[in-house]
Amino acid sequence: MVFWKKLFSSSDAVNAAESTRLKEDLFNLENNDSSQPQIIFSTEKDIDFYELEELCDRVGWARRPLRKVKKAIEHSFLVVSMWEVTGKKRRLIGFARATSDHAFNATIWDVVVDPKFQSRGLGKAMMKYAIAQLRSADISNITLFADPQVIKFYQRLGFILDPEGIKGMFWYPD
Amino acid sequence: MVFWKKLFSSSDAVNAAESTRLKEDLFNLENNDSSQPQIIFSTEKDIDFYELEELCDRVGWARRPLRKVKKAIEHSFLVVSMWEVTGKKRRLIGFARATSDHAFNATIWDVVVDPKFQSRGLGKAMMKYAIAQLRSADISNITLFADPQVIKFYQRLGFILDPEGIKGMFWYPD
Repeated sequence: MVFWKKLFSSSDAVNAAESTRLKEDLFNLENNDSSQPQIIFSTEKDIDFYELEELCDRVGWARRPLRKVKKAIEHSFLVVSMWEVTGKKRRLIGFARATSDHAFNATIWDVVVDPKFQSRGLGKAMMKYAIAQLRSADISNITLFADPQVIKFYQRLGFILDPEGIKGMFWYPD
Repeated sequence: MVFWKKLFSSSDAVNAAESTRLKEDLFNLENNDSSQPQIIFSTEKDIDFYELEELCDRVGWARRPLRKVKKAIEHSFLVVSMWEVTGKKRRLIGFARATSDHAFNATIWDVVVDPKFQSRGLGKAMMKYAIAQLRSADISNITLFADPQVIKFYQRLGFILDPEGIKGMFWYPD
């Protein structure tokens, strides 16, 4: 339960700061009754890969080698996860990550929200949280590649399609 | 002259390997007369930022804080530079870099070729070199954002525009 340890421990300054930040990230702050589900966002990279795989299964993504998923998360500049927390139980319900040069550009990949939690504004809240994290790191150019069915979702978040005619291009091996 | 030191030193295994690799990267291998200009590609990150700034000036790019350029290069997965080498002189004539999660995706940024060296196939050769480097690192999804005037250039290299309707999107701060 590394996540909880990191979330609530105040045994050192870093963990205390992290704990404070995460508590401020509560999506549903008005609800202080711990028996009621709350939504929490985290930037903790230490995610259970099997739990993440289950989340990705729920949206029908093709499975990827866990070794490569682990490496990709380690080398992502930002990892964002969204949790439903009820009492002492927590469940991973959303995920996104971003690569970056730590200076100018970031690219967001692997945005996923549990289907049972979609259409409630939670994906939007998670993306706003991710954007806020990247902005706080002084990244000014936040980019992504959007599947056709989610273009409007990102437009509502302020993402611009093909700005000034700039086009996304992909190279795949033969 | 760190570049030359790294290019020709065989004082340790890493440098020797780097040296061998770079020698194999000679664009103009049939020309062994060192008094004739040769084109060399390098993945060395230790680039003179002022020399890079001069190259970017030559194509009319807006200047960026060197502190941020340094940070971006440090945190790029791949840095590719192209040099014209005549005898003991070398001149930076091309540059590109890529961010990556080291596992699945890479995004190429800041592709620049000295205007005096354009229209000779050197930009294409540099990009092929960059793609080969990313492929050798087992990156299968190589992406970029292309300005309208260079879309055909990238298409000739095998990059696909908006594959399966996937669209490039940008978020900028207000």
